[in-house]
Amino acid sequence: MLCGLSFVVVVLATSAAASDSPNIVIMLMDDMGWGDLGSNGEPSRETPHLDQLAREGLTATSMYTAAPLCSPSRAALLTGRLPIRNGFYSNNTHGRNAYTPQNIVGGISASEVLLPELLKTRGYTSGLIGKWHLGHRTPYLPLERGFDYWFGSPNCHFGPYSDVTTPNIPVFRNASMIGRYYKDFAIDRATGVSNMTKMFTEEAVAFIQRQAREGPFFLLWAPDATHAPTYASLKFHGTSRRGRYGDAVRELDAGVGAIVNALRDANVDNNTLVVFTSDNGAALVSKEEGGSNGPFLCGKQTTFEGGMRAPGIFWWPGVIAPGSVTHQVWSQMDLFSTALQLAGITPPHDREMDGLPLAASLFHPDHEFFRPIFLYRGDRLMAVRQGSYKMHVWTWSTPTDELRRGINFCPGSEVANVTTPQPTDHSIAPVLFNVVLLEAMFAHRAKLRRGEPQLNWCDPAVMHWAPPGCEELGECLKVPASNPTLCNWPH
Amino acid sequence: MLCGLSFVVVVLATSAAASDSPNIVIMLMDDMGWGDLGSNGEPSRETPHLDQLAREGLTATSMYTAAPLCSPSRAALLTGRLPIRNGFYSNNTHGRNAYTPQNIVGGISASEVLLPELLKTRGYTSGLIGKWHLGHRTPYLPLERGFDYWFGSPNCHFGPYSDVTTPNIPVFRNASMIGRYYKDFAIDRATGVSNMTKMFTEEAVAFIQRQAREGPFFLLWAPDATHAPTYASLKFHGTSRRGRYGDAVRELDAGVGAIVNALRDANVDNNTLVVFTSDNGAALVSKEEGGSNGPFLCGKQTTFEGGMRAPGIFWWPGVIAPGSVTHQVWSQMDLFSTALQLAGITPPHDREMDGLPLAASLFHPDHEFFRPIFLYRGDRLMAVRQGSYKMHVWTWSTPTDELRRGINFCPGSEVANVTTPQPTDHSIAPVLFNVVLLEAMFAHRAKLRRGEPQLNWCDPAVMHWAPPGCEELGECLKVPASNPTLCNWPH
Repeated sequence: MLCGLSFVVVVLATSAAASDSPNIVIMLMDDMGWGDLGSNGEPSRETPHLDQLAREGLTATSMYTAAPLCSPSRAALLTGRLPIRNGFYSNNTHGRNAYTPQNIVGGISASEVLLPELLKTRGYTSGLIGKWHLGHRTPYLPLERGFDYWFGSPNCHFGPYSDVTTPNIPVFRNASMIGRYYKDFAIDRATGVSNMTKMFTEEAVAFIQRQAREGPFFLLWAPDATHAPTYASLKFHGTSRRGRYGDAVRELDAGVGAIVNALRDANVDNNTLVVFTSDNGAALVSKEEGGSNGPFLCGKQTTFEGGMRAPGIFWWPGVIAPGSVTHQVWSQMDLFSTALQLAGITPPHDREMDGLPLAASLFHPDHEFFRPIFLYRGDRLMAVRQGSYKMHVWTWSTPTDELRRGINFCPGSEVANVTTPQPTDHSIAPVLFNVVLLEAMFAHRAKLRRGEPQLNWCDPAVMHWAPPGCEELGECLKVPASNPTLCNWPH
Repeated sequence: MLCGLSFVVVVLATSAAASDSPNIVIMLMDDMGWGDLGSNGEPSRETPHLDQLAREGLTATSMYTAAPLCSPSRAALLTGRLPIRNGFYSNNTHGRNAYTPQNIVGGISASEVLLPELLKTRGYTSGLIGKWHLGHRTPYLPLERGFDYWFGSPNCHFGPYSDVTTPNIPVFRNASMIGRYYKDFAIDRATGVSNMTKMFTEEAVAFIQRQAREGPFFLLWAPDATHAPTYASLKFHGTSRRGRYGDAVRELDAGVGAIVNALRDANVDNNTLVVFTSDNGAALVSKEEGGSNGPFLCGKQTTFEGGMRAPGIFWWPGVIAPGSVTHQVWSQMDLFSTALQLAGITPPHDREMDGLPLAASLFHPDHEFFRPIFLYRGDRLMAVRQGSYKMHVWTWSTPTDELRRGINFCPGSEVANVTTPQPTDHSIAPVLFNVVLLEAMFAHRAKLRRGEPQLNWCDPAVMHWAPPGCEELGECLKVPASNPTLCNWPH
């Protein structure tokens, strides 16, 4: 078998310590970049708790979101299916990103099966703390789609609005609004101060404290402080080296620490899989209110690495080996399949699933693992990642008219033929990226010692005038004068 | 481990039937293409004996020569080292092919160690029947470099010459010429009739008959009938559907049958590894006197697949499983290392070797096997093949001035940005070829059922004017008239 399509058969190799129905906590950041974590190389020391989580758990370096922006990415995580399958896309125009602003008519389709709906069949209680973004109209809201508890808002915290042409975004507890952003839940746009992360953290801790004694739970912690307009509470305001964005990261990192402590205090840490990730790459378009994608090209809205490579930390004391790392190509849709696998639930088999169950890989992250990941922008398949390779059949960065308005998804990293401002079809000759072949070439070149070239010189005198044995045969010819010249090699 | 640089450790898993010092027969054709074999899909039924050999043995579909033309390719096979290392190149101008015409001054360097020299240390007798091409001057000739027997010529059978400005090419037996092409060893340029293949076959059979009782032998059978000017004996003349070229193939195929029969008759077939291959891709430039590269791009002189992918059949009754196939990336330099491995000889460790020992792969051809192959044109590294991928850092097809003269190494298969008539540096953005990602994409597309898009319609009436719970809070706003429109997605 060459490096190919074949999937390594993943057998559920449960560790002795892995329990039957573990709790599952997914910490899903908003627009946080791969490069925002100290454990991924960010130098500002904003994430001591996440760095500790990585030391105690598994870092997945190649974890992909299912879409380069919020709503379709989250819909895919909760359905285990690509947006192109679960309907979280638009084909009003081809290849354009769509999400769920508050004037959107649609939402997550009733024909889709969501993770909390399935977990409920095995006695799980599910809580969503934070942003929903899968549709804000009945019947799309979280408590109608399997969640038992919700504190947060259905959309981004854009605003403030005057409530005349646009209403402010409501904040819900369970099935009812309990106020609106800016009005009842303050975000100071002038200073960037808000208590929302503090509240989301307290809500998560309280959910764990309530549920730890009640049976298995699924917590989707989805704070949105790193989505512009970024914010932090006064305790963290002005404490980072990266301004408001870094302040937001610091408060979220502290939240991670508080949630992990709550798991420990409730004595369920050895029975809980914690996953830390983000819904898409950092929004470079947000400038100083956007994060870092580390070494990766471009950001949110694009299918380049910076748009869809997300942080990935998996933590489960006693089950996942501390300090382990995997470079396997993982998708956030795998979280759906893995949660079902751990809970002993059969995934839906009446539809095509994109997620794969990762339990064997979590416990044995050095497994070989070849599977293709399909990267869409809207309704258009842009790229395929597999093994160490990524192939773009379409490229598109920032639309030309938006570039003129100062919007740029790839600031400072334009690459000819790649970050094309128009959607560009490369189907005939796809653009391929790889690391391994270049590394092989560099290694070959580095240790190559060239032999002395033997084929530089030509001379008529060396021709077959008088080969050995010619005398006996009487076939010797007269050897002309030597006239060595550099050979002419035309090809 | 991702698909990467790592070499699968190849343990010599000798079959029970594999003996200690097997005989080794390498049948090395001249300019015969991958696509010339019936077993590789050629429809003219010219190769019944080769097709039978493939049925009884192993077909290697991805066997590469070490150079896109004769002399450097053969020098690499016999040294296990790339021409850039063993000196069989020229740097008079960069990236141009060089070989050993009869006015060449150089030859295989005394500092190189040749396969028959090493085999001699374990009692092997080595014979070369056919073309040498590693230098025709003392001390470069075969009997000075480890061969015990030689019948053939040091260069290509170009001619006839008048012996005035250019002497005719001599034919040697052992250390002395025994005549010249055209004069003493007839090749009728008008009819394409010659008995040379017949003689090379009889010589090979006689060598086997002599040596089978004497101990292990190495036979390099290197007839040149498929190198233009192509020829066949009267028995095969005009018998194929492909003219002179097909006639030559038919006679060589019969020669393969005769040699295999000789092994059987001498009762050494179970103790002999037979390899059938060619020194480079078919010479498309030779038009009707050139062969077929099957589906591959371009031909001899180029580093595209058609220039360096060669037929590969491995036959060893009782040891290699009949009808087996491998798609592993193999190099003809591996034949050097494999012969040493089978003979129990340690390869030279004072120099960089490019060949790998294949014994484990011969017996277990489904092993995973990742290794890079470096494809040079002259002194320039053009491409790297690994796994299912090939990366061109340089491209070059036929030089522009030669194209004007009717020379074309890629007739009918020009590909933009790939078959460039000027040497073209792609180091910044290498041209990558692959099969697997495209296959994955096609499979994904073929079975994709798109969900009904949920994000097409927007309507101000659905905004958060009056969310559930607003009445209790006194925060309900007036809902405007419905005005659904297609959402505008700018990104």
